[in-house]
Amino acid sequence: MVLPTKVPHLMTLADLSVPQITRILQHSLSLKQRSEHLVKPFVSETRQKNLQKPTASLAGKSIALLFSKRSTRTRLAAETSAHLLGGSALFLGREDIQLGVNESSRDTARVIGGMCEGIFARVGEHEEIEELARYSPVPVLNALSSLWHPTQILADLLTLHEHAHLFNAGEPKAGHSTSKGTTPAVLPSLTVAYVGDSANVLHDMLVTYPRLGHRLRIASPPQYRAPKPVWDRVQELGCDKGIWWGENPREAVQGADVVVTDTWISMGQEAEKTQRLKAFEGYQVTEALCKEGGANPDWKFLHCLPRKPDEVDDEVFYGPRSLVFPEADNRKWTIMALFDLLFGRWDLDAKSVKA
Amino acid sequence: MVLPTKVPHLMTLADLSVPQITRILQHSLSLKQRSEHLVKPFVSETRQKNLQKPTASLAGKSIALLFSKRSTRTRLAAETSAHLLGGSALFLGREDIQLGVNESSRDTARVIGGMCEGIFARVGEHEEIEELARYSPVPVLNALSSLWHPTQILADLLTLHEHAHLFNAGEPKAGHSTSKGTTPAVLPSLTVAYVGDSANVLHDMLVTYPRLGHRLRIASPPQYRAPKPVWDRVQELGCDKGIWWGENPREAVQGADVVVTDTWISMGQEAEKTQRLKAFEGYQVTEALCKEGGANPDWKFLHCLPRKPDEVDDEVFYGPRSLVFPEADNRKWTIMALFDLLFGRWDLDAKSVKA
Amino acid sequence: MVLPTKVPHLMTLADLSVPQITRILQHSLSLKQRSEHLVKPFVSETRQKNLQKPTASLAGKSIALLFSKRSTRTRLAAETSAHLLGGSALFLGREDIQLGVNESSRDTARVIGGMCEGIFARVGEHEEIEELARYSPVPVLNALSSLWHPTQILADLLTLHEHAHLFNAGEPKAGHSTSKGTTPAVLPSLTVAYVGDSANVLHDMLVTYPRLGHRLRIASPPQYRAPKPVWDRVQELGCDKGIWWGENPREAVQGADVVVTDTWISMGQEAEKTQRLKAFEGYQVTEALCKEGGANPDWKFLHCLPRKPDEVDDEVFYGPRSLVFPEADNRKWTIMALFDLLFGRWDLDAKSVKA
Repeated sequence: MVLPTKVPHLMTLADLSVPQITRILQHSLSLKQRSEHLVKPFVSETRQKNLQKPTASLAGKSIALLFSKRSTRTRLAAETSAHLLGGSALFLGREDIQLGVNESSRDTARVIGGMCEGIFARVGEHEEIEELARYSPVPVLNALSSLWHPTQILADLLTLHEHAHLFNAGEPKAGHSTSKGTTPAVLPSLTVAYVGDSANVLHDMLVTYPRLGHRLRIASPPQYRAPKPVWDRVQELGCDKGIWWGENPREAVQGADVVVTDTWISMGQEAEKTQRLKAFEGYQVTEALCKEGGANPDWKFLHCLPRKPDEVDDEVFYGPRSLVFPEADNRKWTIMALFDLLFGRWDLDAKSVKA
Repeated sequence: MVLPTKVPHLMTLADLSVPQITRILQHSLSLKQRSEHLVKPFVSETRQKNLQKPTASLAGKSIALLFSKRSTRTRLAAETSAHLLGGSALFLGREDIQLGVNESSRDTARVIGGMCEGIFARVGEHEEIEELARYSPVPVLNALSSLWHPTQILADLLTLHEHAHLFNAGEPKAGHSTSKGTTPAVLPSLTVAYVGDSANVLHDMLVTYPRLGHRLRIASPPQYRAPKPVWDRVQELGCDKGIWWGENPREAVQGADVVVTDTWISMGQEAEKTQRLKAFEGYQVTEALCKEGGANPDWKFLHCLPRKPDEVDDEVFYGPRSLVFPEADNRKWTIMALFDLLFGRWDLDAKSVKA
Repeated sequence: MVLPTKVPHLMTLADLSVPQITRILQHSLSLKQRSEHLVKPFVSETRQKNLQKPTASLAGKSIALLFSKRSTRTRLAAETSAHLLGGSALFLGREDIQLGVNESSRDTARVIGGMCEGIFARVGEHEEIEELARYSPVPVLNALSSLWHPTQILADLLTLHEHAHLFNAGEPKAGHSTSKGTTPAVLPSLTVAYVGDSANVLHDMLVTYPRLGHRLRIASPPQYRAPKPVWDRVQELGCDKGIWWGENPREAVQGADVVVTDTWISMGQEAEKTQRLKAFEGYQVTEALCKEGGANPDWKFLHCLPRKPDEVDDEVFYGPRSLVFPEADNRKWTIMALFDLLFGRWDLDAKSVKA
């Protein structure tokens, strides 16, 4: 067995090539299909015996969830995925480990990496996870940092692919009528509007959507724009050409097939609440806003959750345009694919590939 | 495979018929017997290979433990049961999720239900768990709420059944002498006295014991009585006819085969401590109290734990009458039965059945 | 199957005989070798099928981690070990259980022991874990107490054995040249210097190293010496004859093959910080100190972590003398051996054996 000489880490989708992203999405879908029959209500011992776990690449392995911020979706996705892959997830919250407080991050990375086979880390400043990756003998996967949120965008992309038929309104529905059974519809080139704060979710969109042939239209107050290290990656990947960025939400949603937003007040920004509520006045995603702005009448809605009514009203959020819950479910299958490829197989040569 | 069209939930034993309760108790006993050889000290690889897990109905599945209150017994029972059934339990405490604070309970229920195959919830106000059940796509089991505590009463009943021979003093001990080996003694109709606060533990007793042919005698200060929603269920099930309720502990224990109590100061009631200690003066379960009250000389003692000496003295609690530790152990096997039937198989049609 | 009539517990290495300690170390090494191929990056389903877990002695079993103090290494070692042995570890932190606060330790021990198959406890005062062992129906293993830290010293010993060739400089390297393949070098008799606070780590060294033929040389400020209950065990085992104890770090490291230290300010001693920093002035382990003191020029360094620069400088800690990270890794394999022998098999007759 030949092992990679370099430990693979994944900090942002900017580290992956387009074929790598496509492969992860296909693998996610495959794991989802293979898992779903397993987690259905159980019928008989005999039937059970014939069911296989999707793959046991984490058998005997433990994954450390190093979460300095509270999390529901990411944590649940990680723990349930690890279990499906035959492994164990070990949740270490802020109460358990304070990175850099009782021990240097360098020592913590080395120690955890000596006992676990992967580190899934949700940190504050992005530099903290870079420090972990620098010293960890096992792969480090970014579960969210101040700059990037790669696993969220993979879930968004999987959700769009699964709902591709919704975006092929004028064309024959490839997904429902071939003689050989159902084949999935192909996702056309989309116009994706993001209305809100420029934060980690948007940053991974910036370095990904344009490379996949989609157009990004963004509205954010001028003081909330992607910081230089992010914009450098955007330009390096040639993504800037596919991005329109302004201040007016109505302009942003023009022609949008998909409208995306996120909370205006991320964890740790509670002190800026009043100021932020004021800055984002008029940014709430509503039917009216999208109609006035000239969105595609069939526009769909994405949100990474948790959601506050500030940024999107109930009509949209709980209405038929909303893909937010399938999107949340897909956090599990995309994270499962990364756990399998990165922690189970070391078969994701991130960082060494550009554009 | 035909799946139920309605997701089964369990909020209180009032939702179950008598045959359903009996079936759960029998299933608990069967799982206990099948598990106990497995968890004995391990001898050899060969022997191990021939041991089967009791059933693998949770293989690949994850159960969310959504606990807004601290818990030892319920949590341990849940985590160890899930493991024995091949599944994984995911503890989410108050530090991890604050229901309704960072996200609506509705969204939380839908998101957790999209990644996990069951929700075992310990909430504050009962309305919170009703809200979870309303929106969860997977079964919700009540681990304790302000109104009900169904899993505790199942453990109590299993304990009484296992100790049935103690209540058949005058009769031939069916449990020890048949030619075909040991058959369990049959539990006779009992007089069960409850001395103390009218809280969730008592409430599930009220809707259950009379239907199983047992008499309930209760003493509580007049200001601590079952609230209307509970009493409505009691009457609906015709249980009120089997219940005597007064203020005098001595009167309550008259003829009692079993004496039950619980803490006087539940979690969240610490501010009322002085007032409650005063209201429950004279309620401590002791040998003297039960003798004066005319309990059956062979009376046994139950308590859901954790125990404070206020409500029962050491002589009773640690003495030969006490069944409290077998009762605590049975939290595991009854919860395991519910996990198997409800989360593993969707084979418990609660709520659709009355009386 | 004949079970021991007495539940085996392990509080300190003073409870074990030399052959028992040797057996645990050999078993640790064997489990390490059998596990390491399993946790390597996964290649194929076929290969996976042929991989066996090292032993499944914890299949279906749950181990309670009762930790009243924060922990990284011990907790990770325990959770990953339990998983490799087919079992499940259940972390109960200070937020989950406060020993003796909401319930007596006696009741807690009995309840946990009724649902779990082992208790791995990290307590404050040593008396607390003795109380748990007194009432638990399942084995209790000391994960750290005010007096003892047995699992740390097993990891240290395994690390020294694995690096035995480093201590055989003048002799033929037994570990690298036999015709039948590699046999490990034999660990010679060593001089081990401990420079720092007399705490639980040192206490288990005191009752162990001299019995294994090693010499201990200790420097600590006069007010920080082993308390009477520890010193009683040292004398009872005849270990005092192998121990030199003074105040001067330079004297202590004279002829040392290994230099060991630990934090000067343990958890809970934060209030004494200024006073302790003053008391330990001049105790920092450095190249200069060891050279001046006349340590063996090839001296190696051990530290249980987490490390503060106060007690050892970067040059030593991150330099080629440092065995601290292999030492941390070995927490896992030695704890795994104890979990297997104590919790899985009840095959460690501690306490009944002296010297």
